[in-house]
Amino acid sequence: MAYEAPLTDLAFALTELAGLARLEGNPAFENYDPDLIDPILEEAGKLARDVLAPLNQSGDKAGAVLGPTGITAAPGFAEAYAAFRDGGWMGLSAPEEWGGQGLPKVLGLAVMEMFHGANMAFALCPMLSSGAIEALLAHGNDAQKATYLPKLVSADWTGTMNLTEPQAGSDVGALKAKAVPNDDGSYAISGQKIYITWGDHDVAENIIHMVLARLPDAPEGSRGVSLFIVPKFIVEADGSLGARNGVDCIGLEQKVGIHASPTCVMEYNGATGWLIGAENKGLACMFTMMNSARLNVGLEGVGVGEAAWQAALNYAQERKQGKASGVEGAAPILHHADVRRTLTTMRAKVMAARAICYACGVAADLAKAGETAEIRSAARLREDLLTPIAKAWSTDMGVEVASLGVQVHGGMGFMNETLAAQLYRDARIAPIYEGTNGIQAIDLVGRKLSMANGAAMTEMMSDIDLTVRRARETNDPGLVQIADRLSQANAALGEATAWMRDKMEADRETALAGATAYLGLAGDVIGGHFLTRGAIEARAYDGQIRGRMTALAGFFAETSLAGAPGAVSSITLGGKAMLNESDALFGIG
Amino acid sequence: MAYEAPLTDLAFALTELAGLARLEGNPAFENYDPDLIDPILEEAGKLARDVLAPLNQSGDKAGAVLGPTGITAAPGFAEAYAAFRDGGWMGLSAPEEWGGQGLPKVLGLAVMEMFHGANMAFALCPMLSSGAIEALLAHGNDAQKATYLPKLVSADWTGTMNLTEPQAGSDVGALKAKAVPNDDGSYAISGQKIYITWGDHDVAENIIHMVLARLPDAPEGSRGVSLFIVPKFIVEADGSLGARNGVDCIGLEQKVGIHASPTCVMEYNGATGWLIGAENKGLACMFTMMNSARLNVGLEGVGVGEAAWQAALNYAQERKQGKASGVEGAAPILHHADVRRTLTTMRAKVMAARAICYACGVAADLAKAGETAEIRSAARLREDLLTPIAKAWSTDMGVEVASLGVQVHGGMGFMNETLAAQLYRDARIAPIYEGTNGIQAIDLVGRKLSMANGAAMTEMMSDIDLTVRRARETNDPGLVQIADRLSQANAALGEATAWMRDKMEADRETALAGATAYLGLAGDVIGGHFLTRGAIEARAYDGQIRGRMTALAGFFAETSLAGAPGAVSSITLGGKAMLNESDALFGIG
Repeated sequence: MAYEAPLTDLAFALTELAGLARLEGNPAFENYDPDLIDPILEEAGKLARDVLAPLNQSGDKAGAVLGPTGITAAPGFAEAYAAFRDGGWMGLSAPEEWGGQGLPKVLGLAVMEMFHGANMAFALCPMLSSGAIEALLAHGNDAQKATYLPKLVSADWTGTMNLTEPQAGSDVGALKAKAVPNDDGSYAISGQKIYITWGDHDVAENIIHMVLARLPDAPEGSRGVSLFIVPKFIVEADGSLGARNGVDCIGLEQKVGIHASPTCVMEYNGATGWLIGAENKGLACMFTMMNSARLNVGLEGVGVGEAAWQAALNYAQERKQGKASGVEGAAPILHHADVRRTLTTMRAKVMAARAICYACGVAADLAKAGETAEIRSAARLREDLLTPIAKAWSTDMGVEVASLGVQVHGGMGFMNETLAAQLYRDARIAPIYEGTNGIQAIDLVGRKLSMANGAAMTEMMSDIDLTVRRARETNDPGLVQIADRLSQANAALGEATAWMRDKMEADRETALAGATAYLGLAGDVIGGHFLTRGAIEARAYDGQIRGRMTALAGFFAETSLAGAPGAVSSITLGGKAMLNESDALFGIG
Repeated sequence: MAYEAPLTDLAFALTELAGLARLEGNPAFENYDPDLIDPILEEAGKLARDVLAPLNQSGDKAGAVLGPTGITAAPGFAEAYAAFRDGGWMGLSAPEEWGGQGLPKVLGLAVMEMFHGANMAFALCPMLSSGAIEALLAHGNDAQKATYLPKLVSADWTGTMNLTEPQAGSDVGALKAKAVPNDDGSYAISGQKIYITWGDHDVAENIIHMVLARLPDAPEGSRGVSLFIVPKFIVEADGSLGARNGVDCIGLEQKVGIHASPTCVMEYNGATGWLIGAENKGLACMFTMMNSARLNVGLEGVGVGEAAWQAALNYAQERKQGKASGVEGAAPILHHADVRRTLTTMRAKVMAARAICYACGVAADLAKAGETAEIRSAARLREDLLTPIAKAWSTDMGVEVASLGVQVHGGMGFMNETLAAQLYRDARIAPIYEGTNGIQAIDLVGRKLSMANGAAMTEMMSDIDLTVRRARETNDPGLVQIADRLSQANAALGEATAWMRDKMEADRETALAGATAYLGLAGDVIGGHFLTRGAIEARAYDGQIRGRMTALAGFFAETSLAGAPGAVSSITLGGKAMLNESDALFGIG
């Protein structure tokens, strides 16, 4: 069995964990009706299962191909893209004004999770289009919106993000691409960009590149960066496609995974572009795309993790080795407790990451459309706090869970023909792009903890305390024990947070040496909080769901949450032990 | 820079951590002299750096190829094998009687670690030969030894292990290959074997297959399995090579990594074989090979981890991004605290695993050649205890560290042309073969904890307590703090061990559900014990080594050891939380 959309888990995560109900009755989402959730998830699930998943392994094998006229997508991808486009999926959360359905962003995220799970290489294409749409919505002028948004929202065209250059990766400000003003208000863009996802292809008729470049008089560094719209084909005044622009894919990377997602070296030779947003304010525009992309990349971890768990479960049900009590003859390896534990680890972590990502999505919706300024600003803090955690914790989880999936498969897991092996290879990019997970950790401790005098994390921890209280009030012994673990873990998070905020003032180097460990702890505790909430809410559900959510919360509490108190010293003392001897270790005094 | 043998660390691990000195003056190792360590490591290091490492990436790219006459090794591998053979490396630890140098096994392990680090796909070939040599030494009759050992020890021939069949992986007893007696005392072997490492190749003139098969009247299951010697070319009475035997490579697996190590489907069509050991006692013979192979696979984790750390360090020194205090212009990313922390995590774990593996090797040497029965039996217990930990903890570490190495490389790490990417792919097999890490965990809690009424772990924990006392006696505040962490961690290991031993009697299913987590804890604590010992012994060394060993021990104490108390509930309660709801999770009542 290939990928099957986990509809029950998705709906549960949306409604019971992420708080989708908070968007009901909001005039910004007048099209939204809770009854829509199931049909939307079901329809998207069908596309994921029937169209995208069947191309996942063939796409890995064939890959995209660079020929004299550009990139040809892997066989079947153009047809799959047409099905995606015709289903209207690109516009799900886009404004009606531009042809979208105006539904909450978080619904679009749940849909994207399924597409990532079914075929991550494919889903990257619309993911990048999302970023371009967000940038245009936030920073485009009316003419730009009118020119590009309808076709991007309809998925007739796709979008890309062009940031990285060989010398400018995490340090975007080091980029050198140039933008020279033309007489007509446009700019001539020149330079080379690398690692451009779906930078060229033949699945849609135009590609709208969002390109960071420098104006001739721009200041050095990140304050001299501007964002430009550079279409592959110039869009004429009547909306028709005109001349081919001076941008070409001149190289295709050979990667560990996501082979069907063309990762392009793009060359701009005086290509015509249009400034979007203000001069030298490109970084702000970039972060609009980037924040959207970061959350979406987190969902790649969730999607691939879900796919890995499904594949491992299927294999464990089919593969027979050894004996088990109650089974005649050779037993499916699912009957071995160690295999079941591995599967439970996978499932609990996937569900925790899903909840973090969806909660971040609801926060993003409320940050834009909350009915009061207070709601909006609180939601903005939550979105800002959860974005780096959603990105980094979920993608580290994706790699770990994909690796566990390989392990369940034994020798078969190491064969390229096995889906588990592909997922292990595909998953590995997600902790790297859209800001490495190290950058996310630095963002978390460097910016997110200090916003609004620390309110973002304080509010999060209050929510966790509330979950502790609610779990205790059930008087269910299992839930009370989970609550104890969550309470201890939240206290550990509080201790680490206080230390981190102090240290960022007093000794930034030591603080940053603990940043990744801190993000890991925060993700564990927040993930555990959502799973605990799940166990509480599942009391109103039938036995299967209730049992499952109780088991996932209980397992996560005794494994991940129980480790939280011990993780504090990893944050507060681990970095110091290393920095004290940086000379002996690295020759850095 | 490619792989460079870490000679200082290897020598330190051998002498100060693993206790190589215990073999001095032992008549069984009369050729051994401590002054030999450095020249041996240096020479092997040169082969690793100059011959094997340069073929690592080209071998990955080209892979081995199956043609009409069998497997052709990747370009350059035959020449590299000749250099390996001519250097006499295969015989380093083999008895002089058969052409070896009679040196301790643990020295051979250190050498193999370098070969694995430089080129794991290559090193698998001699690793399998080692297993065949061990099986012949332990179970072969005089004629068999005389026929095969000299050529295997000289590396003129190579060896293989043929256990797995499609339906018989972890459950070896399910194998179906048949051995029918011939009139002359030999057997006709028929059946198919899969996943046979270096099952065919053109780098040596003969291949000695060790094949598990069933006699016609054999009992079912693992008690009806016998081991046979099946040479690719029949060896005539005068030692010359005769007819081609009825064994062929009929398939070559396409794998995630170790592309230059041919993983073969072997077909035996009435091939002539000779029984080794007693009828139906093949499993015992197999375990002789297997135990040797398990420790060697642990060293693959160490070698690949070391290679990953080196590659990441090199990249971090060269790659410039962003600013750092004290550096003009863009700074090497090594200056970022988060990158240094990642590198320190890698190095500490590699060193801990190396110590565990080498200590297991010294124990293996003493188990065979200790001067009193008491020494031998204590050493045997230690070897038995450490083997599953050396295998599983080190290979999980290898995957984790290889993944961290990718992360340090950023986008470059996801490109197949990058060594880090290859190591991530190569490392993934080691937790799977020679008994999955789950099987190792079950072996640890199921057999190793109960041997000699639990003496193996009790003695290990006594050694750890001794390290705690020695660290405290230094009165060095840093070491005293490390000792506190180690002491707490050892107490946690004691608690978990007591629980595990009880549960294995009272509730085996719950015990086994905690086995993998228990092995992880045991590896952390034992690894931390060795690093602590390293920090103690390094006080007699110069500032660089002293500083480094102090930092690795301190870092590991505050990160891994500090997590030990919290890991107990993962073992004792995590499994229960899952098993309680096995029906809701898996449909297993």
